[in-house]
Amino acid sequence: MSFVKVAEHSDFPLQNLPFGVFSTGDNPTHRIGVAIGDQILDLSIVKHLFTGSALSKHQDVFAQPTLNSFMALGRKAWKEARAFLQQFLSADESTLRDNKELRKKAFVAQSSASMHLPAHIGDYTDFYSSRQHATNVGIMFRGKENALMPNWLHLPVAYNGRASSVIVSGTPVRRPMGQTRPDETKPPVFGACKLLDIELEMAFFIGPGTKLGETIDISQAHEHIFGMVLMNDWSARDIQKWEYVPLGPFLGKSFGTTISPWVVSMEALQPFIVANPTQDPKPLPYLCSDDPYTFDINLFVSIKGEAMPEKATVCRSNFKHMYWTLRQQLAHHTVNGCNVRPGDLLASGTISGPAVESFGSMLELSWKGTKAIDLGNGQTRKFLQDGDEVTLTGYCQGNGYRIGFGECTGKVLPAIQM
Amino acid sequence: MSFVKVAEHSDFPLQNLPFGVFSTGDNPTHRIGVAIGDQILDLSIVKHLFTGSALSKHQDVFAQPTLNSFMALGRKAWKEARAFLQQFLSADESTLRDNKELRKKAFVAQSSASMHLPAHIGDYTDFYSSRQHATNVGIMFRGKENALMPNWLHLPVAYNGRASSVIVSGTPVRRPMGQTRPDETKPPVFGACKLLDIELEMAFFIGPGTKLGETIDISQAHEHIFGMVLMNDWSARDIQKWEYVPLGPFLGKSFGTTISPWVVSMEALQPFIVANPTQDPKPLPYLCSDDPYTFDINLFVSIKGEAMPEKATVCRSNFKHMYWTLRQQLAHHTVNGCNVRPGDLLASGTISGPAVESFGSMLELSWKGTKAIDLGNGQTRKFLQDGDEVTLTGYCQGNGYRIGFGECTGKVLPAIQM
Repeated sequence: MSFVKVAEHSDFPLQNLPFGVFSTGDNPTHRIGVAIGDQILDLSIVKHLFTGSALSKHQDVFAQPTLNSFMALGRKAWKEARAFLQQFLSADESTLRDNKELRKKAFVAQSSASMHLPAHIGDYTDFYSSRQHATNVGIMFRGKENALMPNWLHLPVAYNGRASSVIVSGTPVRRPMGQTRPDETKPPVFGACKLLDIELEMAFFIGPGTKLGETIDISQAHEHIFGMVLMNDWSARDIQKWEYVPLGPFLGKSFGTTISPWVVSMEALQPFIVANPTQDPKPLPYLCSDDPYTFDINLFVSIKGEAMPEKATVCRSNFKHMYWTLRQQLAHHTVNGCNVRPGDLLASGTISGPAVESFGSMLELSWKGTKAIDLGNGQTRKFLQDGDEVTLTGYCQGNGYRIGFGECTGKVLPAIQM
Repeated sequence: MSFVKVAEHSDFPLQNLPFGVFSTGDNPTHRIGVAIGDQILDLSIVKHLFTGSALSKHQDVFAQPTLNSFMALGRKAWKEARAFLQQFLSADESTLRDNKELRKKAFVAQSSASMHLPAHIGDYTDFYSSRQHATNVGIMFRGKENALMPNWLHLPVAYNGRASSVIVSGTPVRRPMGQTRPDETKPPVFGACKLLDIELEMAFFIGPGTKLGETIDISQAHEHIFGMVLMNDWSARDIQKWEYVPLGPFLGKSFGTTISPWVVSMEALQPFIVANPTQDPKPLPYLCSDDPYTFDINLFVSIKGEAMPEKATVCRSNFKHMYWTLRQQLAHHTVNGCNVRPGDLLASGTISGPAVESFGSMLELSWKGTKAIDLGNGQTRKFLQDGDEVTLTGYCQGNGYRIGFGECTGKVLPAIQM
């Protein structure tokens, strides 16, 4: 229990303590904070109190405008910070609890803070690691017999995403203009995207990096994984369809990718590890690990159209539906010697489960636009309309508490006609 | 003419003045320099002399460890810097010429300098804009009838590359390990890449950036293009072949991408603009511009095996063989609102001409390994061997001078077996 009041279904109890970067109206400096209840503990104010062996000489990492330096320190420092903060914020610790002046300086209400990207993202990679999603897309575009590509069960397929357009929750997303070919018997046309979609994803941040030529063994991958966020990989299906052969998604994705601002540490997620999925065929040895690294995280997608009084939940999924683990993704990513840097972002790909309501994109929920998605009160969608606000949420259910991720949200602005 | 001696076929006469980042044994600080003959003018020493209207308040851009800040200033500042430097280094200007002490401080022999990446590269994009290359690859993998994909003549196809593994000329490249499937009737295998290849490319750096949601009109694209370098997009063909469907190249490319250190400005390349290629079908209006923006740049690839006394030229190509111009590439890249940042790198894709000797990859030169590439003295190659040193060079031929790019070189190190 913390001396800070934490509401019953709060995403941010003392067991969570996610890290983020925020600013306030009276202090526009980007600074690092930890969420507790509806408050933010400003670490730039209390950094001198991190006096453990791993952090005493690195207190400046909490005076940075991003988490990259803290991420680079590695697991020993992360655990030390977490242990200190859990004690510092606990109900029986008086240092902060009874110091009104320090509390006034160190706490900021989340409602009065602006959140920013938690890290400078050097490179962003998007995997494609949900078997159900890959199968659904495969059936739609190639038929049931050839749903999964031959490589899919042998390696975690991925592509390089665009880092510059990764944005923080709350940033509106402009419907993209682009080239599409709606009628294959006619030349392509230019105009606003007509098939704007979401993708329910999660992503993790890299901690300590590697040098070019180095690999990360799957047994060591955990040491390089800092924590996780929610991600909405906005997708322009019509632009993507026309452009993506043979080099993969490009403008169909690079107009915006939204992440939630609070990075939940792997320590906080540890109690929610469940058995890995059975993999058949067994992957090559560099991808094999007996350590369970699959996480039971409930995930939700809601849409609120401008005419709707409240948002409607269109997807209930779970991160445990992933086929490839984060360990496997990272071991694969670096097996060729590709270097990673602190703050690099590696995303899951759309997370779809076996039930229809767990499909993580409107492409799947509307089955390629062949059926309407019911939003209640007579509202339906096949793809997104201008003004729609999409919100991703997620949490692990503990015994009497939740490890939550906050919100990953964004509103669709109309295209600017050229 | 400069008072600095410039050899007859030097890449770096007074007409060129490319920018780069270097350090020396006695001063490991990364600093910005300009190449002239076999010397480097250290701009951090003379920055106070940039007193023109565009630069007088921004002299600090020349005291940075990368060119990003200078790139961000835009064309007015670039032209002013160039005009000043051409005067400052000219034979009839005494300021530097007759000041022995300043000359001693401001000049560094290129032979005693280490070159570094010229910019922090936020995002790296690789296009696929040589028609001959796309056709060659298409014929090899899909047959003559379906050589070009349906979208290829309508838009400049591209994918997001890996920024972390872009390295400067001279850095050795480790043969990657990875997953391949040499026999399609058997499961994939793990091991060292067997089909290691090069790609002859050029790339340009972004100057002033854009905000997310903004576009760059093709008529304004030139204002955002700072200058060009040579690029070797090392490729593991066997890894690439197995992994790339459906999301594009990933580990087959991300183990290393080499660029030349000196960024040649678009002003220096201006005299070598030639007519754009005829485009049929005519692209959509957002890709149309009457301004010629195709460059006559001679390009060469040589290989030197460890047992060879000297390097052998295996490819003679030219940048004018590009189908899509840099203007078109940038207009397309941003048409969906994707933001670009100063220092972003956009590459051409392999530059192959119509003649066999102008093919820009060993895949094409050996026609998928079906014929040997002759290196002389009984040496042949189909793909790269360990110890091979690959060097790209290029220059524009002026009247009595060359605008050269220096070298883009790298040696293949053996794989580290896991």
